[in-house]
Formats: sequence, C-alpha cells, structure tokens
Amino acid sequence: MRVARFSLNGEPKFGILDGPELVLLKGHPLVLGYETTGERVPLKDVKLLAPTIPSKVVCIGKNYKDHVGEMGLELNPEPTIFLKPSSSIIGPGDSIVLPTQSNHVDLEVELTIVMGQIAKNVTEKDALNFVWGFTIANDVTARDLQASDDQWARSKSFDTFCPLGPWIETEFVPDGQILESRIDGETKQQASIDLMIHNVPKLISYVSQNMTLLPGDVILTGTPAGITRISSGELVECEVEGIGTLINPVV
Amino acid sequence: MRVARFSLNGEPKFGILDGPELVLLKGHPLVLGYETTGERVPLKDVKLLAPTIPSKVVCIGKNYKDHVGEMGLELNPEPTIFLKPSSSIIGPGDSIVLPTQSNHVDLEVELTIVMGQIAKNVTEKDALNFVWGFTIANDVTARDLQASDDQWARSKSFDTFCPLGPWIETEFVPDGQILESRIDGETKQQASIDLMIHNVPKLISYVSQNMTLLPGDVILTGTPAGITRISSGELVECEVEGIGTLINPVV
Repeated sequence: MRVARFSLNGEPKFGILDGPELVLLKGHPLVLGYETTGERVPLKDVKLLAPTIPSKVVCIGKNYKDHVGEMGLELNPEPTIFLKPSSSIIGPGDSIVLPTQSNHVDLEVELTIVMGQIAKNVTEKDALNFVWGFTIANDVTARDLQASDDQWARSKSFDTFCPLGPWIETEFVPDGQILESRIDGETKQQASIDLMIHNVPKLISYVSQNMTLLPGDVILTGTPAGITRISSGELVECEVEGIGTLINPVV
Repeated sequence: MRVARFSLNGEPKFGILDGPELVLLKGHPLVLGYETTGERVPLKDVKLLAPTIPSKVVCIGKNYKDHVGEMGLELNPEPTIFLKPSSSIIGPGDSIVLPTQSNHVDLEVELTIVMGQIAKNVTEKDALNFVWGFTIANDVTARDLQASDDQWARSKSFDTFCPLGPWIETEFVPDGQILESRIDGETKQQASIDLMIHNVPKLISYVSQNMTLLPGDVILTGTPAGITRISSGELVECEVEGIGTLINPVV
C-alpha cells in the first residue's frame, strides 16, 4: 500500500494510492488508521507533500562500500550516524535551492525507513516490526563545506536539502532492490541495496540503542557510488525499485 | 521575566515566575502572549519541564578558546555546527542516564538561545530581535564515543543528554555573565560568556544562513574549559548568572 500526504484545497491530507487516484483518509494513519472518507481525487490534481513530518531525520554515512571508496574514507565497523534538521525537508516537485555559501552541491539517493512505532533498544530480529514503511530521500550535500567543516551538519542542513517522497510504501521488504539517481534523464547512481554495509534491521537496532525513535521519524540509509554535482536548471530524479521516483528541480 | 513550563495535575502549562510562585498563562506564550488565567501556584508544588519543545537543537562546538585548547582541537574561523535530536531533551530534576555504550560521559554547561520568531538570513545587527529569551543546557557528551566516531552525533544524542531549563529569561542580555558547572557542589567549569569566540548575534546570524530557525528552537552556544566526567549518584548543577541553575542527578 502506498500512503501519500498531499495538499487539497490548501489543506494537508493523507490518502492511499489506487491506480491514478488517491483514496482520502480521515486523518493521520498512525493515529486513526486507514479509515477512508469515501472521497477520491486524481493524483494529477493534487500537490504531493513530504509523506511524513519527522521529529528527527537520522542519517547513515558511509554505508555503501563503493561510495566509501569514492570519498576516500575509511570504513567504520559500526554505522556512522549524523542528523539533518526537519527544516531541510521538501516534498516531491519542490525546488532544491543551491546556497550561495557552496560551489559544489551533490545529490545522494537513499532508501529511507519511516518508523511506525516508538523504538528504543530494539533487536535486529524485531526491528522491521517497528517500521511504518519506506520512502526515498535525496541527502543533498554541499560537498565543499563537508570537506572544509569537520562536522557534516552544516553541509547537509540547508533548507531544501532533504527532498522526501513521493509516498510511503508499507509493503516494501528490503531485498536487493535497485536505487538509481538521474540528472535530466541521465543515470548517475545505480546500485542494489544489497551493497549496504549495515542492513536495514541492523541500522534500526543500532540507532534505537542511541536515541528513541518516534513514529514518523526517518532513517536515511546511505548512498551508493556515483554522487554527482547538481546545477541550477537541472531536474533530479531519485528512484527506488518497488517504491517510486522522487523528482525535484534545482534552482 | 522568567517563563517556565511545568506539569500541573499531569498537564503541561506555562507560567511566569513571581517570587516563590508561578502565575499561570492561558496557553503557549509564543501563540497567545502573556495573558494570565489569574491562578497562582507555588513553584515548589510543580514539576518543572524543559521550557521549550524545539523542532531542532542546534549546537555550536569549540566556541571557547580555553575549551578548544583542552580538547586539542584546531580553532575554526567560523562556528562549528552540529545537531542533537529533540528526543535527548529532559527537564530540570530529571535524571541523566549513563548509556552502557560509554565509559566516559562529560558535562558541558552552555548558555542557550531560545528563538521567538522565524529567522532566516538575519544579520548580526538584527539577530537579538528574533530571540525569545535565554535558558541553560547541559550538552552531555559521551567523550569516548566522540573520539572514536568521526561525527559527533551519536556521542551527543543519547536520551537524557540534553537537560534544558530551568526556565526562559526573556530579559537576559549577553554581557559578560558567568557560566558555572558543579558536581556535588564542587565547581568544575567557571568562565565569562565574553570568552566566546563567536558571540550570540554572530551565532544566530550564521546558523540562520544555514537553516531556518523556528520559534522555540534552541542554539547551544558552546562550553568553556573544565569539562568533567560525571558518574552515577552525582548531582550536576549548571548555572548561568542572571538566568538560574539547572540541576540534574546522574543515574
């Protein structure tokens, strides 16, 4: 099932994707479940929003061996955690705004876990039971600032640096699906999620031992090799097989 | 004026401190202003809560010259930004819980800015106009994990690692006030905020050029030298002259 959040006559709503239509839900599915209002609206007539408003955006760095190589970084035996602020989130179709402070902004397609329950100290075995579903994020990064600062927060925290969407796929089971990013239709990153160094259950368990995850919180699971600079006027697509495609223009 | 958030009969309330009493407010002061209900309650009869629930906790690293020296770090010409998750916040009197992953957890007293308005790309000259007031934070840090991880997020993100309070002082004007931390009554850190490398207006302006600050968001402005390990059973006090004292036991 694909759960979308969207703006209808200026009001944020949740709905379930049914072919070319959205079936409207009575409220937030994590609060009211999947009770529908009976209304339907064509997908093409709504503005999709980021599918969740997380209390925190947890990110995993250096989680694909090939990307660690291209960055010239050392492999950590444990996941590298960093945070993005929720103010960096934008939805499908929203513009990525290049900041004046940077001369080199990269895209990073990432499979993204959306939590469905409070998770603290969960085991790898139980981890997937705490998941609401999966979506896609673009962990946009000012690569020059990442290199000049010793902490990554600033380079990854600019407004619009966390495109999220297009919806949450609740039936996605991580199993070798392909991630791909494209600029103006040209493939830049393409890899299987099987190339992750730390897999999805490990990441949820590890993060939940560090901080309590709340419903709606997201974990960005890292990006494969092929990170590419984006420029004003380009169209960026981030696709995960089995979920969909997150599309954002760059201004 | 000192604005406190507290639990009264299990419900979160805001109030203004008036000697040994709290004058109750009708709602969130950033939404409804300082309209009072007429009720008063003795401060000693309520449980104080963290005075704000921020959408993000922005922190500044290496902002006191003497602390940079004791950490063996290089001085950055610009502020070092990192983030803590809101799940790490606790209120006055709540326990700091030492995580099993660390063998060395330190206290860090910090003057903390609480934003009152949306702030994006503000100038240093205008910066203080966007502030609601000031409070105190303890940027609790697992020093061993900070050293072993290259990013600081994990070492500073454990639940209970961001004690905040005891209230917001809206009339505080940064001007050489003394910060002090104590363990079981013994002074560990003591410095003037004049020793900051980047002052309060500079920090607000710099952070607001990176990310949009929302009302209630906090900026922790860094800690002076004297960071000290805390142990189970100790009582930690963080004081800022002109604001008050934030007290938390360690378990």
